[in-house]
Amino acid sequence: MRIGVDGMGGDHAPSVVVKGVIDAAREYDFYIVVVGPEDVLRKEFARHRNVPKNIEIVHASEVIGMDELPVMSVRKKKDSSLNVLVNLAKEGKVDAIFSAGNTGAMVCAATLGLRLLEGVERPGIAIIFRGLEGTTMIIDVGANIAPRPNHLLQYAIMCDAYSRYILRKKNPSVALLNIGEEETKGTEFIKEMHQLLSASSLNFVGNIEGRYLFDAKIDIVICDGFIGNAVLKVSEGIAETFSTLLKREINKNILRRVAGFFCLPVFKALKKDLDYSEYGGAPLLGVDGICIIGHGRSNAKAIKNAIRVSGEFAKNQVNQHIVEAISGFSK
Amino acid sequence: MRIGVDGMGGDHAPSVVVKGVIDAAREYDFYIVVVGPEDVLRKEFARHRNVPKNIEIVHASEVIGMDELPVMSVRKKKDSSLNVLVNLAKEGKVDAIFSAGNTGAMVCAATLGLRLLEGVERPGIAIIFRGLEGTTMIIDVGANIAPRPNHLLQYAIMCDAYSRYILRKKNPSVALLNIGEEETKGTEFIKEMHQLLSASSLNFVGNIEGRYLFDAKIDIVICDGFIGNAVLKVSEGIAETFSTLLKREINKNILRRVAGFFCLPVFKALKKDLDYSEYGGAPLLGVDGICIIGHGRSNAKAIKNAIRVSGEFAKNQVNQHIVEAISGFSK
Repeated sequence: MRIGVDGMGGDHAPSVVVKGVIDAAREYDFYIVVVGPEDVLRKEFARHRNVPKNIEIVHASEVIGMDELPVMSVRKKKDSSLNVLVNLAKEGKVDAIFSAGNTGAMVCAATLGLRLLEGVERPGIAIIFRGLEGTTMIIDVGANIAPRPNHLLQYAIMCDAYSRYILRKKNPSVALLNIGEEETKGTEFIKEMHQLLSASSLNFVGNIEGRYLFDAKIDIVICDGFIGNAVLKVSEGIAETFSTLLKREINKNILRRVAGFFCLPVFKALKKDLDYSEYGGAPLLGVDGICIIGHGRSNAKAIKNAIRVSGEFAKNQVNQHIVEAISGFSK
Repeated sequence: MRIGVDGMGGDHAPSVVVKGVIDAAREYDFYIVVVGPEDVLRKEFARHRNVPKNIEIVHASEVIGMDELPVMSVRKKKDSSLNVLVNLAKEGKVDAIFSAGNTGAMVCAATLGLRLLEGVERPGIAIIFRGLEGTTMIIDVGANIAPRPNHLLQYAIMCDAYSRYILRKKNPSVALLNIGEEETKGTEFIKEMHQLLSASSLNFVGNIEGRYLFDAKIDIVICDGFIGNAVLKVSEGIAETFSTLLKREINKNILRRVAGFFCLPVFKALKKDLDYSEYGGAPLLGVDGICIIGHGRSNAKAIKNAIRVSGEFAKNQVNQHIVEAISGFSK
């Protein structure tokens, strides 16, 4: 398995990316290709001892910044680490690619470079998280902030295929994120989506309110990329706020500090449940290739986990199932 | 101070409403008018001993359910507890009104019955919460799910007036909830809002991402009612999930249970920080009266706190400041 990694992607690139790549190369049986300016990457690798042999650097002279306009930067910076990375996938030199860089640019570069799967109109970013009762997929969390109803319908179909063939769920339930459970609630767009999903052969169970998102009683939750992204970031913010408040309260007196010490395993388990870096990366579904998108704030652990996730996706070959599902659906 | 309360509003009405009203009547120096079917309310009050004298029941024969269509139910059920409540405010018989019932119906009944303040185009629901560094207002969290840019601009102006005159903040900062901080990010609507707020005399500091919402470094956060409501509900969901996970982890073995016991004050403090029932209610800004909207799931404590909040709002007389701000702004 060969995994391509954008060496320059993310707020803390290239240092955390290089660290994450080294950790992944040690832990997993992957061959990892890191893309970026060779001198910069070599200098970064030189800071580590015993760099594993299953790492290769591929040169790219340019870098797309986190704040650059996606379409413009992808078209202009032909030799950016992102474009070179996508080309590696296109030429079959790697089985999956990962970047924690500019999300919009990754979506754009992958769409232009790898093209979309047959029948797919727009790619969508899915996150898969463990809730209280199992796993839930949420799509889209930021690829498509002004979707048409059919885009969201296709997202549901893609996640249905993923849930059936990869997660081995029998009849995955699909719900629409809304501000109330009643059919009459929500914007005109949401009401139209509700009708479209109801009329489909998917196991559509209706609207879901945000408060029940983390119960994971639903397998697939559909929303537009703006709302999905906002919800995701607010969730992260709350988890961090909670952790800050916890520290503050624990440190208020010595008795609390002692009790807090004995509760450390509890806090660590909680942190693990809520920490995005445990999940590593989110698949960009719908492109003809395996693309994993990481959080811009990824640390080395998140990078390492995203490389693991990329390998799992490449192994699973979900794309042929997606193509079949989409073509079967339009009949 | 006279506070009107919808006796039939909320998922657990009338029992928790009556309990909350009794607690509030004992604790605060308010005269509380509870509206609803007299026989139902009398029966509920009869279950309590020593009901305080500063409570009055006003009869209303109908009830608007949580799932009913707002405009239709408000127009049809003239003698609903909600309409009768709004009429009490209109006739000056109470200084503020509160309902934990159907939010859309409350917005509609208040708008039709009390009318909007001069110059205001749409009312908006604001929540005020304590974050890590102070208080933040978020508007709108569900009154207006398909707003025009000018509605959101007016929400910002109303919250600016509230922050200046009630919260005594000198130059309140205003930010727009977006999926990135850069001006180029977001939907067309968001970009238009960004320009409108930039051109205004408000202390607009740009976009804010959801993850920084709870840092409370921003005084006022603007968003459309769909997103605001989704974000709010997801936040509640996470807080509950966190609490469930905490219990699960604590109960894993005896050592943890003992340590957890000594950490109880910590968990209680955290719960208080995150518990919506501490906040009680959110003001509907823009109507010509004082309307407080409660969470449908309100418990007796939330009802009691909402009655306190209603009294504070009535005392503060924010509306004259809003009218001045809106009229000054359009000049």
